[in-house]
Amino acid sequence: MTTVSTPVSQPLLDRLRAALGADSVLVDPDVTDGYRRDMMPLAPDGAPQAVVFPRNTEEVQEVVRTCAAHGVPIVPRGAGSGLSGAANATEGCVVLVTTRMNAILEIDADNRLAVVEPGVVNLDLRGAVEKHGLFYPPDPSSYDWCTIGGNLSTNAGGLCCVKYGVTSDSVLGLHVVLADGELLKTGRRTVKGVAGYDLTKLFVGSEGTLGVITQATLALRPLPQAPATTVAAFGTTADAGTAVTRIVREGIVPSLMEIMDAAAVEAVETYLKTELGAGRGAAALLICQSDSGGEAARRELAAIEQVCLDSGADLAYTTDDPAEGRLLLAARRAVLPALELYGAWLTDDVCVPRTRIAELIAGCARIGDEVGLRIVVCGHAGDGNMHPTIVYDRDSTDELARARRAFDDVLGLGLALGGTITGEHAVGKVKREWLVRELGPVGLRTHRAIKTALDPTNLFNPGSMFALE
Amino acid sequence: MTTVSTPVSQPLLDRLRAALGADSVLVDPDVTDGYRRDMMPLAPDGAPQAVVFPRNTEEVQEVVRTCAAHGVPIVPRGAGSGLSGAANATEGCVVLVTTRMNAILEIDADNRLAVVEPGVVNLDLRGAVEKHGLFYPPDPSSYDWCTIGGNLSTNAGGLCCVKYGVTSDSVLGLHVVLADGELLKTGRRTVKGVAGYDLTKLFVGSEGTLGVITQATLALRPLPQAPATTVAAFGTTADAGTAVTRIVREGIVPSLMEIMDAAAVEAVETYLKTELGAGRGAAALLICQSDSGGEAARRELAAIEQVCLDSGADLAYTTDDPAEGRLLLAARRAVLPALELYGAWLTDDVCVPRTRIAELIAGCARIGDEVGLRIVVCGHAGDGNMHPTIVYDRDSTDELARARRAFDDVLGLGLALGGTITGEHAVGKVKREWLVRELGPVGLRTHRAIKTALDPTNLFNPGSMFALE
Repeated sequence: MTTVSTPVSQPLLDRLRAALGADSVLVDPDVTDGYRRDMMPLAPDGAPQAVVFPRNTEEVQEVVRTCAAHGVPIVPRGAGSGLSGAANATEGCVVLVTTRMNAILEIDADNRLAVVEPGVVNLDLRGAVEKHGLFYPPDPSSYDWCTIGGNLSTNAGGLCCVKYGVTSDSVLGLHVVLADGELLKTGRRTVKGVAGYDLTKLFVGSEGTLGVITQATLALRPLPQAPATTVAAFGTTADAGTAVTRIVREGIVPSLMEIMDAAAVEAVETYLKTELGAGRGAAALLICQSDSGGEAARRELAAIEQVCLDSGADLAYTTDDPAEGRLLLAARRAVLPALELYGAWLTDDVCVPRTRIAELIAGCARIGDEVGLRIVVCGHAGDGNMHPTIVYDRDSTDELARARRAFDDVLGLGLALGGTITGEHAVGKVKREWLVRELGPVGLRTHRAIKTALDPTNLFNPGSMFALE
Repeated sequence: MTTVSTPVSQPLLDRLRAALGADSVLVDPDVTDGYRRDMMPLAPDGAPQAVVFPRNTEEVQEVVRTCAAHGVPIVPRGAGSGLSGAANATEGCVVLVTTRMNAILEIDADNRLAVVEPGVVNLDLRGAVEKHGLFYPPDPSSYDWCTIGGNLSTNAGGLCCVKYGVTSDSVLGLHVVLADGELLKTGRRTVKGVAGYDLTKLFVGSEGTLGVITQATLALRPLPQAPATTVAAFGTTADAGTAVTRIVREGIVPSLMEIMDAAAVEAVETYLKTELGAGRGAAALLICQSDSGGEAARRELAAIEQVCLDSGADLAYTTDDPAEGRLLLAARRAVLPALELYGAWLTDDVCVPRTRIAELIAGCARIGDEVGLRIVVCGHAGDGNMHPTIVYDRDSTDELARARRAFDDVLGLGLALGGTITGEHAVGKVKREWLVRELGPVGLRTHRAIKTALDPTNLFNPGSMFALE
């Protein structure tokens, strides 16, 4: 937190209040400080001069025009559940919070689509479409409080991706307020369409740097069957990695395939006061589900169970009890809160080719030893997207520094294994330097050219993803 | 064809010959005329001053630098199977043909990906990966001769899309030579990744207007089971449309769902000298497949058969004989060649919400009556992507004019039904004015801003998709 007082432009605030109403423009630092940061402890932040809560597209346009006229940057923000600092405020900016734009405008069951505002909470959308027998797949860990707008901005993933893809695979079209305040409508309501550049997918994952999304048309899928679940415990992470490779190689597509290392299992068992059935000495637990239903699910999971045993699993069992499946998933989702038993956590997000998962886990153990901190690994084994999570003492600047070193070493390891520095959390304000390493000079130049073309004054989320110079 | 002689720049040709070798630079108009056009009769074309055949990325870079230095535009081209004029030459341009870059560089079965050059023929890739038990889904009608580069540039679809999506859903990363000759590498080899803007999907479907794709990393799927097939014949197209809507609504996802109207069935039966079993008086034939295998396929197709009968089908039957399924598909794919029995054809490519298919077919019949030409409708009912095809006498300028009118009226109808002017064939040089109508002024301006940012001198495929001014 800075001790310098944040510059405030009274004419800007006056115009924002005139457009949105005084109750939609917050300036009290005790309140606005709550909007400085998302959930990533390492990213820089600043004090916003105002936090605004527009209720509709027209109000967003007015905020954009006002901020553009005053040369004040805008940081778009949903629920603040992000893990990259993409929604962190910059000093003196206006934070534009979309949570009041939370209407589900339409569910067209016959064409399997929904039209929503960005502030809709992921879980609320899932529940609403489920009533129509439909399914919105993207399910980031924070799905019970994150917003669709944040999911769109980071191109969020989740546990579903191995079978159903990431957020951009479920987006048909967007409304976006551009830097000049004009409203751009991208995409369409049809399943297919190639009229023009794919602007929809350019804006998805652009981390609020190109415009403010005010509406999205989302593709829905048929609601799958209640899943059956297979759990397998391995004595070595290498064996677990072999099992993942073989499952992929055999052409089995589970609806979920999660991995937890021994430390993750231990933390969750302590936190939830339950046993996950991995047994003593297990180095890794693999949780797989199939939502194909009936005989197809039984066949898929029997094949997975056999592959696990063939790859050296100490035990493997399958259940078609949905309650048991839910408990196992709840355990997997409890890894991060469970780590708070030990201290603060810092979660990474590398994605590697699926054949390299075991090497990544082994490398993380080595990095943990080197920095003297616990690194817990869990992740989406089915697509190689792993979340090595570093535990540190939040009151120790030395431990924080070592955590940062481990964080960077994990990114370097991910790149060395042919992976990427972020599978689903985004670059934000914490991995900008790493993005340059991944993209190279031509890629960075291309990014800057697009940003400058669409946002010539760097109005939107400046300094997120990459710096303009 | 123009009667003015095409301007030729000798220094340009000399430098191209020095870089590529004389046998890779064709200038004889008798030969280069064969590279003026793709398969769309209505799009404008021009005479290229040279047609070049680079063998690798470095040679593409040299062509780009040379043309940029001489201010001569480049029109990238694959096999020329396109249906939008996107690959049509402009007067005095250099046509860059990618067919000599036809190596499959890598098949990584464990990570389910392939790395290919753009000139690889779609069918060759399908065959090569099938040997590894893998599947490359995109299957445009021209799959036995179109190239992956053309598929990427138009974001091609095919019969597979209802279950497996379009080309962009199978692309992980690209190598692209930019307007300054630099090589941009987009994307990654991992399944997921959100590091930076989704440049991969920006270039896919950009119709060669932003750069030349010289390599692609493609995601593969497990090879599905041999499909079983259901055919249903309907007395009215409205009933067929109802069946499609109900199939979608019931959450059934066939691996293929094609529709042919009576005129399409008649043409194919005459052409192939066989009966498709629709019976006399059938107004529409629906062909559905499931590749889920065994019991799952039987369950899906039994449900589809029942929905068809409930929706008023006169007959419906299911076969799990792969040979019979292949024959039916071959019949569906034979619609366009079959139409040559009647004259020249001009195929449209509108995509409408799946609930509006029957209205589209009825509207096409009305348009056919109005212009006095036969309009045959077939298409990908599962995703609403329809190909109304106009038959005309190629020697009659009056019929060509009426065909053009019908072509435009179908586009207007598609937009009026909430659809798009192109589901999979691209805008090219034939639907530029329609793109403006679909995008609106803000969308068009955004397209121009991106094009100008990446290709400031309008080097690549000028006048395709949209005009810069």
